[in-house]
Amino acid sequence: MSVTAAAGFSAGGTTAGLKPSGKPDLALVRNHGPRFDAAGVFTSNRVQAAPVQWSRQVLTDGRLRAVVLNSGGANACTGPDGFAVTHRTAEAVAEALGIGAIDVAVCSTGLIGVPLPVDKITDALPALVAGAGADGGAAAAEAIMTTDTVSKQAVRHGDGWTVGGMAKGAAMLAPGLATMLVVITTDAVLDAPALHDHLAAACATTFERVDSDGCMSTNDTVLLLSSGASGTAPEPAGFRAALTAVCADLAGQLLADAEGAAHQIEIVVAGAASEQDAVTVGRSIARNNLFKCAVFGRDPNWGRVLAAIGTTDAVFEADQLDVAFNGVQLCRAGSIGESRDLVDLTPAHVRVDVDLHAGGASATVWTTDLTYDYVRENAEYST
Amino acid sequence: MSVTAAAGFSAGGTTAGLKPSGKPDLALVRNHGPRFDAAGVFTSNRVQAAPVQWSRQVLTDGRLRAVVLNSGGANACTGPDGFAVTHRTAEAVAEALGIGAIDVAVCSTGLIGVPLPVDKITDALPALVAGAGADGGAAAAEAIMTTDTVSKQAVRHGDGWTVGGMAKGAAMLAPGLATMLVVITTDAVLDAPALHDHLAAACATTFERVDSDGCMSTNDTVLLLSSGASGTAPEPAGFRAALTAVCADLAGQLLADAEGAAHQIEIVVAGAASEQDAVTVGRSIARNNLFKCAVFGRDPNWGRVLAAIGTTDAVFEADQLDVAFNGVQLCRAGSIGESRDLVDLTPAHVRVDVDLHAGGASATVWTTDLTYDYVRENAEYST
Repeated sequence: MSVTAAAGFSAGGTTAGLKPSGKPDLALVRNHGPRFDAAGVFTSNRVQAAPVQWSRQVLTDGRLRAVVLNSGGANACTGPDGFAVTHRTAEAVAEALGIGAIDVAVCSTGLIGVPLPVDKITDALPALVAGAGADGGAAAAEAIMTTDTVSKQAVRHGDGWTVGGMAKGAAMLAPGLATMLVVITTDAVLDAPALHDHLAAACATTFERVDSDGCMSTNDTVLLLSSGASGTAPEPAGFRAALTAVCADLAGQLLADAEGAAHQIEIVVAGAASEQDAVTVGRSIARNNLFKCAVFGRDPNWGRVLAAIGTTDAVFEADQLDVAFNGVQLCRAGSIGESRDLVDLTPAHVRVDVDLHAGGASATVWTTDLTYDYVRENAEYST
Repeated sequence: MSVTAAAGFSAGGTTAGLKPSGKPDLALVRNHGPRFDAAGVFTSNRVQAAPVQWSRQVLTDGRLRAVVLNSGGANACTGPDGFAVTHRTAEAVAEALGIGAIDVAVCSTGLIGVPLPVDKITDALPALVAGAGADGGAAAAEAIMTTDTVSKQAVRHGDGWTVGGMAKGAAMLAPGLATMLVVITTDAVLDAPALHDHLAAACATTFERVDSDGCMSTNDTVLLLSSGASGTAPEPAGFRAALTAVCADLAGQLLADAEGAAHQIEIVVAGAASEQDAVTVGRSIARNNLFKCAVFGRDPNWGRVLAAIGTTDAVFEADQLDVAFNGVQLCRAGSIGESRDLVDLTPAHVRVDVDLHAGGASATVWTTDLTYDYVRENAEYST
């Protein structure tokens, strides 16, 4: 499973003492080669954590030999001192593994604006490196959890090659990614530019279409590492499909474990003039707090869906909009359709279908409802 | 007080039976002249309720003699039948008052996508008209309440003239206005174009800077009626100041009564390259659910403020951002400043100061926190 499913990788997790809970908080993913091609996608937030700045930089040569990840502190908005902590972390990992720091990516997650105690990380490194192994994927996935209630792993097999990954994330899921740390590994033979193309395409229709609360993190990172250990150069379409499946699987797990969510909501926008229009409309609905509260209250409030659509600049006419909840056409041509009483929102999965009647494009955006537990977790998270 | 503070107006409220609660739900504001100049500002939502479509239309000649307002049903997304209901309502009011329907604006608020029983409205009109008087402002303000817990009224006096108004609104406060119905009256002598200029300017820095949950209604309407009964043409700057004060007063009351809010949050963005940048940054913070939950939890989580700023395209450098909560400089130059322990978020009023260090422009945006009660009211509103 996970980041050690593909040949050529080892991983592990340990407890450095960064989390007050004493749970595992430091993870390592190591690429043993023979190839070290890598690609990354990072948050589009203009306030970027030190580890994001570092990892972007070391990835410019398209190579990574190791990724070190910590929970228990985001090391974001921590100034030059924070960047020094990330640099020191990468140096320490490099020393321990006998490689260069320029081949070590760093990912951090946790509270913003709190200094990260680098000594705790460096002190824990020997045990982390010693404990890492080809069966360590699950331990690594566990060590990157924050308010996640379960660890997230996924794997797909191709013809002679494998792609697998792990993710963490519980809130702040949004376009341009989430406080979402994802590491995906493969033993397929692919160079860095190809890895980047595949990763960007896979993220665009998976992680970037999940929007639990419209908030975008300072630390989001998705890394893809290739060891080439299978010796097999995959057929491009097949590899992209497998990679996209891993990303979709992990994105679904992130959504299902989103902080305080009681419903997973699939918003399918069809009849759009362009895919961009469909995404814009889907996101506007996904971010509408009144709609999200209504779903929590099991109320198929299609009026709030129309109000959300109306705030966008997508191509549509208000008197042509159709909206269905779980297949029941509640709104037809912008007006009253079937009875709301026909819709049962008790099940955790809710599907909302919107037809803009403006073209042939479509897109699906996923979100969650807005619940008491969401408020509780986010009001009490740092206190 | 309210819409009957200025000379030349009468108003009233009655119970038509639109609300299941049996509370007052139908209001009338009547202009007795001698002038009937009027202006309006409407929701920018592209899905517009029938009464918004109607009122926009009748205002094209810059004249109004009466406004009829109902709570208990938004008459939005109700198709041609819904428009016929609004038309019939205006016709009935016109008949009762002996005026033309083209001089009657209609405002509705309540659930979207539910037919409005026009017979209940027409049946209640005789009593509404008979009961309206120069002391009826408070009754009108009460009859337009939905989930409001208190009625909202404001008045300011100029040199020989008066401007006063009423408002309803509890959620969906957002730019481009809110499910906010506002009627403002004045006895100052002003023509329709001048009224429109003053109203647009006053709204731009008051109602449009209040953003409780980022959701924009299909029914938002702000109307300004002038009777000219004072016989006084006001000095323009003085009138604009008084009108803006009435709007600011009402906006403050809307915010203080926003659904489920425990804190009113004043976000002051300074050092912006433009006023638009300052508003953009303020709104981005005001709409960040994680920030809003943190304030509810009395946690001065400045990291979430920076993450929200980082999603905008405003001019700034991340390593120059300053953020203060209630005057305590928690973030300095994009990094850690004073201790969070110095901030007490127990009081209901919270002030967040952001300095972008990118210019001399500034703006203030108001919002509320995200609470259990917000979720409860919006999950259970229609059930």
